[in-house]
Amino acid sequence: MILTVTLNAALDVTYNVDALVPHGSHRVDESFSRAGGKGVNVARVLSALGVPAVVTGLVGGPTGRAIRDDLGAAQLVDELVPMAGDSRRTVTVVSREDGDATVFNQAGPHVDEATWADFLTRFTQLVRGVQVVVLAGSLPPGLPTDAYARLTRLAAAAGAMTVVDAGGPALLAALGARPTVVKPNAAELAEATGHADPEAAVASLRARGAVCVVASHGPEGLHAVTPAGAWRAVPPLRLAGNPTGAGDACVAAIAAGLLAAALWPAILREAVALSAAAVPCPLAGDFDAGVHEQFRTSVPVEGVPVPTDELR
Amino acid sequence: MILTVTLNAALDVTYNVDALVPHGSHRVDESFSRAGGKGVNVARVLSALGVPAVVTGLVGGPTGRAIRDDLGAAQLVDELVPMAGDSRRTVTVVSREDGDATVFNQAGPHVDEATWADFLTRFTQLVRGVQVVVLAGSLPPGLPTDAYARLTRLAAAAGAMTVVDAGGPALLAALGARPTVVKPNAAELAEATGHADPEAAVASLRARGAVCVVASHGPEGLHAVTPAGAWRAVPPLRLAGNPTGAGDACVAAIAAGLLAAALWPAILREAVALSAAAVPCPLAGDFDAGVHEQFRTSVPVEGVPVPTDELR
Repeated sequence: MILTVTLNAALDVTYNVDALVPHGSHRVDESFSRAGGKGVNVARVLSALGVPAVVTGLVGGPTGRAIRDDLGAAQLVDELVPMAGDSRRTVTVVSREDGDATVFNQAGPHVDEATWADFLTRFTQLVRGVQVVVLAGSLPPGLPTDAYARLTRLAAAAGAMTVVDAGGPALLAALGARPTVVKPNAAELAEATGHADPEAAVASLRARGAVCVVASHGPEGLHAVTPAGAWRAVPPLRLAGNPTGAGDACVAAIAAGLLAAALWPAILREAVALSAAAVPCPLAGDFDAGVHEQFRTSVPVEGVPVPTDELR
Repeated sequence: MILTVTLNAALDVTYNVDALVPHGSHRVDESFSRAGGKGVNVARVLSALGVPAVVTGLVGGPTGRAIRDDLGAAQLVDELVPMAGDSRRTVTVVSREDGDATVFNQAGPHVDEATWADFLTRFTQLVRGVQVVVLAGSLPPGLPTDAYARLTRLAAAAGAMTVVDAGGPALLAALGARPTVVKPNAAELAEATGHADPEAAVASLRARGAVCVVASHGPEGLHAVTPAGAWRAVPPLRLAGNPTGAGDACVAAIAAGLLAAALWPAILREAVALSAAAVPCPLAGDFDAGVHEQFRTSVPVEGVPVPTDELR
């Protein structure tokens, strides 16, 4: 079983407009909303792959009710914990002219100490019998920066592996709890470590406690360094589209691979194929089954030499 | 008493961002929401002026509840009629860089025939004892184009005057019911009549049934043609800011003037002053009391000759 944690769950709203005109007034012809936040998107991908996943995190208010209604409609297992305040929305404005997306992310409501204590209690119950925990996305205001570190330790105490997909202080604070995998993208990698060189940045994250690092470099694919070795996996074709969806699909593939005790080259091949299959889909959490089938057998994965002192 | 009708009531949400970057991802640092839709904004201005106003229209779903909660908080009299579906939101993205606003308007939920029949029944009750009815804003999907014509006739049958602030087919269809005042802006005037010349366009709206036309030309002020004469009123200073708020303030001044049986030059002076006072306020329904006080005595209003055959 995989448990995905979305502490800043959102209602993702898509607005379709003819073209985005800054300082203009736009008629939104079609709008569409569904439950989102990185952990929810990861659970959606896992569910489509037939991998059992449970969604937890924090929700509140009428927007929280809309999130839960949508999870129910999608038949995702909802173990979200209620909080005061109204859950955030993200608004994505998609222009028909060029298909491009402009995204507005609210910070989310403030979480108080009592709610965080409730969540820790519920998480401790939920993590029993779980093999992999996914900790994904931004932390809402009010939570301590080491929230993911705390959850990583609780997961480890229950015998579960962890995949952390976060940036900035939340990522750095998580490292001390020795998460099984962290999956920064290129920007998060540089920002968190201060290293312009991606290889030095990955080594730095491992030196600070991450057991495995899977760095995603968009169309240039994945670079993974683990105690068992290091690899690069590159998509055979470049696809234009939705990078958020690609990141969430990558995390889903890593979590599913850890659950199945797959070997790293197989995990990375699947992660690249599933990411590539998510890129053409405008909504994070969706992927193109045809692209996935086609790519999963054709992604080249190459071993990369690693200094022996880094193989730990 | 003034009754304002907002058939497509909205929750107006403001997102503050550092700068709007098309195709970028934005962190929304602050967001703010309140009840909106043109009729609601007009009632808010009237309430601030101490003129009694009642809000009616259609609302539904969790967004409808948020609209009603906000009307209650603002101590506006809420006689909204419930409908199925969730009320629309408008999102205004305000850039800190230049203060400019980019607006996204949803069409609103589909209104079925039974809901429209409910509304007509409720409106017929509410309009008794009302002197002025304001019909403002777009019609939601599902309503007949002649919705404002229907309400104008019901208002006239109850002895009430009407102010219609709409564009396109809703405006044209209303004319046949002989509304007391229509208040198109320059773009609505040209679009509805097909006349590039504003004077010919105003004459055309009156020929089709509008008793009075108050055409708003932004910083160039108002041009009014009525059975009692024609005038131009021009703001003494140009102000940059929020044109939606200016239009709603103008309608509020016209409605308050009709209620007080004021003479047209006085109504227009007040309409220009109140519009100018709304321009510096980012939210429609607000106005700057200082600017209002300063301008209401200094707006020049000039009579304009009108061909005798148009004075009817």
